[in-house]
Amino acid sequence: MKPTNAFAALALLAAPLVAQDPAKPAALAPGEIVAAAPSADWTAIAVSDLLVMDLAPDGKGKPRRVVIQLMPAPFSQGWIGNIRKLAAAQWWNGTSVNRVQDNYVVQWGDASEKKVLPAGLAVVPESEYISASDQEYDAKLSEFKRKNPKATPIVKSPAEIRRGRQSFVDSELSYPDNYAKAAGFTQGWPIAADADIGLWPAHCYGMVGVGRDVPPNTGTGAELYTVIGHAPRHLDRNIALVGRVIEGIEHLSALPRGTGALGFYETAEERVPIKSVRLLSEMEVDPVPRYEYLSTESTSFAAYAEARANRRDAFFIRPADGADICNIPVPVRRVKL
Amino acid sequence: MKPTNAFAALALLAAPLVAQDPAKPAALAPGEIVAAAPSADWTAIAVSDLLVMDLAPDGKGKPRRVVIQLMPAPFSQGWIGNIRKLAAAQWWNGTSVNRVQDNYVVQWGDASEKKVLPAGLAVVPESEYISASDQEYDAKLSEFKRKNPKATPIVKSPAEIRRGRQSFVDSELSYPDNYAKAAGFTQGWPIAADADIGLWPAHCYGMVGVGRDVPPNTGTGAELYTVIGHAPRHLDRNIALVGRVIEGIEHLSALPRGTGALGFYETAEERVPIKSVRLLSEMEVDPVPRYEYLSTESTSFAAYAEARANRRDAFFIRPADGADICNIPVPVRRVKL
Repeated sequence: MKPTNAFAALALLAAPLVAQDPAKPAALAPGEIVAAAPSADWTAIAVSDLLVMDLAPDGKGKPRRVVIQLMPAPFSQGWIGNIRKLAAAQWWNGTSVNRVQDNYVVQWGDASEKKVLPAGLAVVPESEYISASDQEYDAKLSEFKRKNPKATPIVKSPAEIRRGRQSFVDSELSYPDNYAKAAGFTQGWPIAADADIGLWPAHCYGMVGVGRDVPPNTGTGAELYTVIGHAPRHLDRNIALVGRVIEGIEHLSALPRGTGALGFYETAEERVPIKSVRLLSEMEVDPVPRYEYLSTESTSFAAYAEARANRRDAFFIRPADGADICNIPVPVRRVKL
Repeated sequence: MKPTNAFAALALLAAPLVAQDPAKPAALAPGEIVAAAPSADWTAIAVSDLLVMDLAPDGKGKPRRVVIQLMPAPFSQGWIGNIRKLAAAQWWNGTSVNRVQDNYVVQWGDASEKKVLPAGLAVVPESEYISASDQEYDAKLSEFKRKNPKATPIVKSPAEIRRGRQSFVDSELSYPDNYAKAAGFTQGWPIAADADIGLWPAHCYGMVGVGRDVPPNTGTGAELYTVIGHAPRHLDRNIALVGRVIEGIEHLSALPRGTGALGFYETAEERVPIKSVRLLSEMEVDPVPRYEYLSTESTSFAAYAEARANRRDAFFIRPADGADICNIPVPVRRVKL
């Protein structure tokens, strides 16, 4: 392939492109901005937040490892607590990938639906789909008052919470959004917000969510899926998001599509066996792989996001002057050890 | 799988779901609205607009056929004329799929980059990325006046064109859009618009575009790609879109991802051979398969789009009250013969 092949300037190039027209030097591509970001702009992902799923090797005997980063508080912690317990119990070992629906999701769990769940999993209410809702605040305030009848509440007031959400909606890094008042990034995650409702994570490519039955069922976390197509944002606030795939998504997104309803595999032979799902912190690996995300609060991220919305590198002729948050994937990298 | 499995209510069910709560009967899901659409709301896709790509059979000997619908006028007709010539010349026979980049595109064409193109391909200007631009109008007006020096121009005036675009932007079926003043659907296609700029097709999942070198190169149409991830709308107005995959996209989207830069396959063995790309109208098949799309001007489509933006079927608890056009895929079906 010659270097000026189609899409060449979309490359995540380490070195700046040679400008085609000396009068109009090409701006840095988003990938070049990421490559140039100082190490201070990268934030370590806690090893304790990493889930490692090993599928059976592929037809050629090559291993297939998928690494998932779990979301930080305040998002979806009830389900994430369950997922930690399921992984500690090695509950997923011997289960399978059962559903691959094109332009939608890959889903895994217990196809028999008979495997007994570990004791002590939480039943998480629907209100937890949204963070810092008034209901959640009220519940926290009640609990605080019950435990500390004479103390002054230290949790934020509803007005303070609403002001916090409003400042997120109004912030420079927030984007117009078709599914919320605004959307943007916090702690490395794509988040949607409405000052009157709360904050919630967005169903972008690679996000991992909790399969469930019809409401009021909210799922336990034993049945998981990841997004492999255009962001199905209509699922926001309707299903819990718990994390994202940060390595090895191709082992899921390139699987054969299921031919049953909703992309479920029709035969047991088609299902992809899961060898194990473990917390990285509970695995014996040396060295322990480490990952970082480009801090969404850094100036490098701001420049990257701006360049995603306004491509001025040599391949482009018309910057879009806009982007949706799912078209600004948060850069994640594996640290060279 | 039990019928209430995760996502069950997302099914494209032929029969209405049984409502969970008699006091709140479940609304129809988008797929149910499509299934119930009267035949008058479906529009036939012209056989002459269908391109059939046959890949080499898969590892198990199963055929892999991809059907592409070319766009109607006024969009991208220069490149589409070239594509018709390339198909008539059977130019793609013996070429290959060379690039599969996760969450981005699958690209095919001549990996050797030495295959001689048929004579007479048009060199299409960048202005053709946008339909009904003032430049295009001016060019058409000049041409008309040159050919008909004494006649009154019959082409629309710039003011009329701008009013037409404005009415598209203002229309009921237009959506807020992060990449344009508005976006919506016309003639069955997802279209973005700015009254001051023009109309252009949107890079949604499954759309087919023309690979190119750096500007001012606009590509011939010999190198094509399709979108297999979140809509890369930043490519709008920067690359020509010429059609969409309407059947068999799984033969492209589920291919192994390339491990080279930009997802190019690193070895010749990884490339997927293309047996042939032909216009369906030039193939000897009996019966000729026929396809229809749900007319984007029909009341069924309006109801479908509304339901995509406001899911009220039994699985959902909170309608989004919004959608982006790439999350409202235009329904296409194969006619049972």
